[in-house]
Amino acid sequence: MNKRLLLLSNSTNYGEEYLSYPRQEIKAFLGASIKKVLFIPFANVISYDGITEKVGKVFQELGYGIDSVHSTLNPRALVENAEAIVVSGGNTFHLVHRLHEAGIIDIIREKVNNGTPYIGWSAGSNVACPTIKTTNDMPIIEPMSFEGLNLVPFQINPHYTDGVVPDHNGETRESRIEEFLAVNPNITVVGLPEGTILKIENSSVKLIGDKNIVVFKSGEARKEYGKGADLNILL
Amino acid sequence: MNKRLLLLSNSTNYGEEYLSYPRQEIKAFLGASIKKVLFIPFANVISYDGITEKVGKVFQELGYGIDSVHSTLNPRALVENAEAIVVSGGNTFHLVHRLHEAGIIDIIREKVNNGTPYIGWSAGSNVACPTIKTTNDMPIIEPMSFEGLNLVPFQINPHYTDGVVPDHNGETRESRIEEFLAVNPNITVVGLPEGTILKIENSSVKLIGDKNIVVFKSGEARKEYGKGADLNILL
Repeated sequence: MNKRLLLLSNSTNYGEEYLSYPRQEIKAFLGASIKKVLFIPFANVISYDGITEKVGKVFQELGYGIDSVHSTLNPRALVENAEAIVVSGGNTFHLVHRLHEAGIIDIIREKVNNGTPYIGWSAGSNVACPTIKTTNDMPIIEPMSFEGLNLVPFQINPHYTDGVVPDHNGETRESRIEEFLAVNPNITVVGLPEGTILKIENSSVKLIGDKNIVVFKSGEARKEYGKGADLNILL
Repeated sequence: MNKRLLLLSNSTNYGEEYLSYPRQEIKAFLGASIKKVLFIPFANVISYDGITEKVGKVFQELGYGIDSVHSTLNPRALVENAEAIVVSGGNTFHLVHRLHEAGIIDIIREKVNNGTPYIGWSAGSNVACPTIKTTNDMPIIEPMSFEGLNLVPFQINPHYTDGVVPDHNGETRESRIEEFLAVNPNITVVGLPEGTILKIENSSVKLIGDKNIVVFKSGEARKEYGKGADLNILL
């Protein structure tokens, strides 16, 4: 049981090409023995075919084939046979709703807990957490449940930033996470800035990327961690 | 049946004192015959007492007493006897959950439909819509339902802005609303910028404030409307 996850804040950094910064990390994570990944496009609300083509192009350049879970009437069978699972970003409410609707939450969890590598970005990282309660997305659909894949015991806030819209008074990201902790005091939140990745292998958590992550716990001051810090405490 | 609503984007503009910009509009809306408002503090996740005191101070300066719905074991009776209903901002998921939990959605709707004035800001404006699906808030609690008070037939996006966090790649507000329309094509979204207010009296909708609102409909280009424009089409 070698549990392995690559959880990316975002697909694409500001001003870069699609899925540019994490390309080599994805290749290193999947390695040479995997031939094909199973793709879950459910966060995309415009076109499953469109996003599958876009992501497939990148994975093909890296040497991997791609099957999408939306291309079959029996998604459970596809998940059952997956060599690796890849979940793209978009809208987290849409993603979690379709995962529950397709009835593949439990089987993905079982597969990943038994060693099938999991790669997610943005909504795909958020849904790997116990719930989707730390998403930044608009709740455009009422999902069957807020429960996520529960592959890690903490919550990720993807696209984390201390930046604000100039001359605007909406809540900061930090104040939103503080509200989350007021209602959910027993769970840790990891603010994962754009361009950073958590690589989880069994009981090891490594930060990839040049920015610090920010860890929020109820009743404690926020703590920043950079590359090389001991993050195994998150598990 | 003189239906009357004052729906504010936000409590407070950037750099101003709490509830400063809408003070005179609130006074003009409530008038001289109302003595006391019923306050709903459920969007606040930190302290119902704290926010009631803060809002109560402003309303007292304007000449109105305040009762909070959280101060009683029988909130339905308080709503039943309310002269006016005031709903503050904070977290929309928390607000809608507590409204459903308290069992006062239907009675608030009935009261407002029968002429009891309603004032809301931010989450309090969002919850006046058919659903909370256009909130900007973090889903820190899984609400009993996404259904709102349904006092107006369109969705408000409060704190609307075309501004973005510099060098950050998260979705723009406009792209989030486009995602909403992709899933909910039959409903109009009004982007209500900070410092603007919709004043609704029967079949009349007026914009108060110096910024334009942005109206989004499925399959149409966004349209901006300024002061004096005919907004009755929203109803």
